[in-house]
Amino acid sequence: MEKNCSVNGSKTPLYEEVAGQVAHLIEEGTFGPGSRIPSVRALSRQLNVSINTVMEAYGLLEDRSLIEARPQSGYYVLARLGNIPAEPGVSSPRSQPTKVSIKELSNMIMRDMRDTSLVPLGAAIPNPEHLPVDRLNRMLSTEARRYREQSVSYESPPGCEKLRVQVARRLVSTGCTLTPDQIVTTCGCMEAVNLALLAVCRPGDTVAIESPSYYNFLQALELYGLKALEIPTHPRDGMRIDTLRYAMEHNKISACLVVSNFSNPLGSLMPDDKKKELVELLAAHDVPLIEDDLNGDLSFSHERPRVAKSYDKKGLVMLCSSFSKTLAPGYRVGWIAPGRFQGEIERLKGITTIADATPPQLAIAEFLANGGYDHHLRTLRRIHARQTSLMAQAVGRYFPEGTKITNPAGGFVLWVEFPEYVDSLVLYEQALKAGITIAPGPVFSAMQKYRNCIRLNAGYWSDRVERAIETLGKFAAAMES
Amino acid sequence: MEKNCSVNGSKTPLYEEVAGQVAHLIEEGTFGPGSRIPSVRALSRQLNVSINTVMEAYGLLEDRSLIEARPQSGYYVLARLGNIPAEPGVSSPRSQPTKVSIKELSNMIMRDMRDTSLVPLGAAIPNPEHLPVDRLNRMLSTEARRYREQSVSYESPPGCEKLRVQVARRLVSTGCTLTPDQIVTTCGCMEAVNLALLAVCRPGDTVAIESPSYYNFLQALELYGLKALEIPTHPRDGMRIDTLRYAMEHNKISACLVVSNFSNPLGSLMPDDKKKELVELLAAHDVPLIEDDLNGDLSFSHERPRVAKSYDKKGLVMLCSSFSKTLAPGYRVGWIAPGRFQGEIERLKGITTIADATPPQLAIAEFLANGGYDHHLRTLRRIHARQTSLMAQAVGRYFPEGTKITNPAGGFVLWVEFPEYVDSLVLYEQALKAGITIAPGPVFSAMQKYRNCIRLNAGYWSDRVERAIETLGKFAAAMES
Repeated sequence: MEKNCSVNGSKTPLYEEVAGQVAHLIEEGTFGPGSRIPSVRALSRQLNVSINTVMEAYGLLEDRSLIEARPQSGYYVLARLGNIPAEPGVSSPRSQPTKVSIKELSNMIMRDMRDTSLVPLGAAIPNPEHLPVDRLNRMLSTEARRYREQSVSYESPPGCEKLRVQVARRLVSTGCTLTPDQIVTTCGCMEAVNLALLAVCRPGDTVAIESPSYYNFLQALELYGLKALEIPTHPRDGMRIDTLRYAMEHNKISACLVVSNFSNPLGSLMPDDKKKELVELLAAHDVPLIEDDLNGDLSFSHERPRVAKSYDKKGLVMLCSSFSKTLAPGYRVGWIAPGRFQGEIERLKGITTIADATPPQLAIAEFLANGGYDHHLRTLRRIHARQTSLMAQAVGRYFPEGTKITNPAGGFVLWVEFPEYVDSLVLYEQALKAGITIAPGPVFSAMQKYRNCIRLNAGYWSDRVERAIETLGKFAAAMES
Repeated sequence: MEKNCSVNGSKTPLYEEVAGQVAHLIEEGTFGPGSRIPSVRALSRQLNVSINTVMEAYGLLEDRSLIEARPQSGYYVLARLGNIPAEPGVSSPRSQPTKVSIKELSNMIMRDMRDTSLVPLGAAIPNPEHLPVDRLNRMLSTEARRYREQSVSYESPPGCEKLRVQVARRLVSTGCTLTPDQIVTTCGCMEAVNLALLAVCRPGDTVAIESPSYYNFLQALELYGLKALEIPTHPRDGMRIDTLRYAMEHNKISACLVVSNFSNPLGSLMPDDKKKELVELLAAHDVPLIEDDLNGDLSFSHERPRVAKSYDKKGLVMLCSSFSKTLAPGYRVGWIAPGRFQGEIERLKGITTIADATPPQLAIAEFLANGGYDHHLRTLRRIHARQTSLMAQAVGRYFPEGTKITNPAGGFVLWVEFPEYVDSLVLYEQALKAGITIAPGPVFSAMQKYRNCIRLNAGYWSDRVERAIETLGKFAAAMES
């Protein structure tokens, strides 16, 4: 049996520990940019671990773009490593409820999605090349045949049972033990969030959200006549609980809406103790938490983070997610675990869209049961880790000095903070003319803050994407007058 | 060439004219219940039309349950013909805006849908046995394969182009000439109506609706904080325009919502001149019309009625429909032609559900293009005509004296008005215990009127359904104290 490098008894796989040790040596400068690191054989001997373990560790470091393999030569620290810009600090939105007005901005990003000639750095869409398209479409066929009449019939709320069974099973890995009856299927995660807002808010109410926040959340708040209270949010660990606590003492809050894992656009990951603190704070005030876990399956590490819902004792947390970022955006298969609001969510679903398309629900259920979802996720996570890192490095190379960028631990978006002189709305226009779409910062704020920020979709990576980053960098630099 | 029986130059097929003449003779009493009508050969000679034409005409009369074929004997007038009860009169709702409150009632009907052991007389659902299940599911497979990556990708608003092209083509038969760009796909017709309401109403606004009206419309109004103004509606020709005109002079109306063709629950069909009058009245006040044409393709005659939208000159009519009643409820393929509200509807769709499931949209588009939709519709219309007639006759046989029932010209629901002593809410409970679900009258009114009424789904017909009607009749009769 291999010696375990770990001093504590943690369950981290050995190859990750090895990768961590090597990464540490690189970051410390023991192995500088461009230098050769120990061969696989050498390190295997040194650490008393198997060849395979070192191979896996080096594979991980390659995915993270820390090292590269050179044929017949060995592994080298990537020369451009030092170029990744610093992270932005915690956001500081104005802490007053604000009416949202970002209609046109988000409309433009949505419209850009349809133009496949554009370099797609705007909307957060995965590259279909990385999705198990053929297997899914095959299951679509087989399941429609197998459940013949059912496949054309209404699956009225709570929705397709086969799917809810699979979702409930997977929820165990998030720390939740829920039954299929505690889940309602939805048309993607966004419908889940909409239903949750409708269930617990009335026009004029205030909802506490992260800042910056996904533009469709802001638009949904506006649509239902709700006010957004933007809470400062750290790009690494999410919404500031102390500020939320303070805000709740001075504002009547009807709900809190957070993306707890790999948020959009910051990519922040709320640590477990913070999730617990958040749930307890809200529970003390009987305020529902709408938790969006759309990206929870997309951790760059082996570990699937818990959800805040796992700390929910009062049934106040409505957990929302979908398979749009991991399997098939176009299948529109989402769900909500609405806690004590189960009945109301079912009713609202029935009023607004009645049911979801049955064949995609059956196909996703089958994929979860027998399609190798975990295996697919491992591949997808490595791809996203690699692409996010490559894009961050490209930003380091091409964007003007003083630019900051997030360093997310999952998902596939990057938040870029330019120097103050860069106007992202002007940049958006210039980029569009050059065949590139981006998401300008103000669309992520009810107050149209973040004028010098943009969000980048790292779902795609290619030379063309790198050229697009270079072009954006030139446009941005040219704004310094 | 055959002699044309028609005195005018109308385009009614010859066999329908022949059927009409024979029906007239039956209704007049020339051929009484149980009597034998002329043989096919004899009538063919008499009218100087082909054998085939008479065969088709008799087939139509069989579908309408006017006659029956007896082997080796000929065609006979059905004995039970005289039993169909009279039509109810025009409704008389209180003409004041009312807050809606029918949550539990409609929740129950929705929940009953999931229990397949119940006789399904509640929700208006088609029998999947009458839908082209295998062809649709085959097209689901072929199209997903053909449009490989597209089938898993977002079809952001306005939605799948291939589908919008087909919908635009079919709209010609409704009197509308619209381009695919003037259509937005939705998750069924109900989402279309929801988006239309959100586009033109603000909380506190009043919407004029038919009375009785589809319960989900009433619930949607309540959800968005809107008031329902119930306008008297005739079971034959729909909403009373004169009352609407009067109401508009005394109330501020933000929108009018009607099911112009084969309404739910009355089955009324608004004549063309009335549709025109309605559109012009609303246009004069710049009030948008939300027109639900969900059942428009389900006329019992050969003629597909026009839509009010065909008279729309100001872009004020938002036409909503889906393929849930004709092809596949579970595919959730609907659409809206939103006129001047196109941009706003696209934006709202993007905020609420982002997109519709792609594979079902592709499959329906292919079915419309190459699946024989018109042929399928002809079969489906005959089935519904027959079932609706059989159910009405059963109501005549088994329901207490004084019961009235609608005589719709399309769709597949029947509205039953019991004598005053029948309480449909009690009947609902009794029926449920007996394994039957119905839709009680109060769920179709914001004021919970129509306590002595029920709606029956005629999408199913079998001995079991007939027994259920008999059981309902017994329960109802027992309420006379």
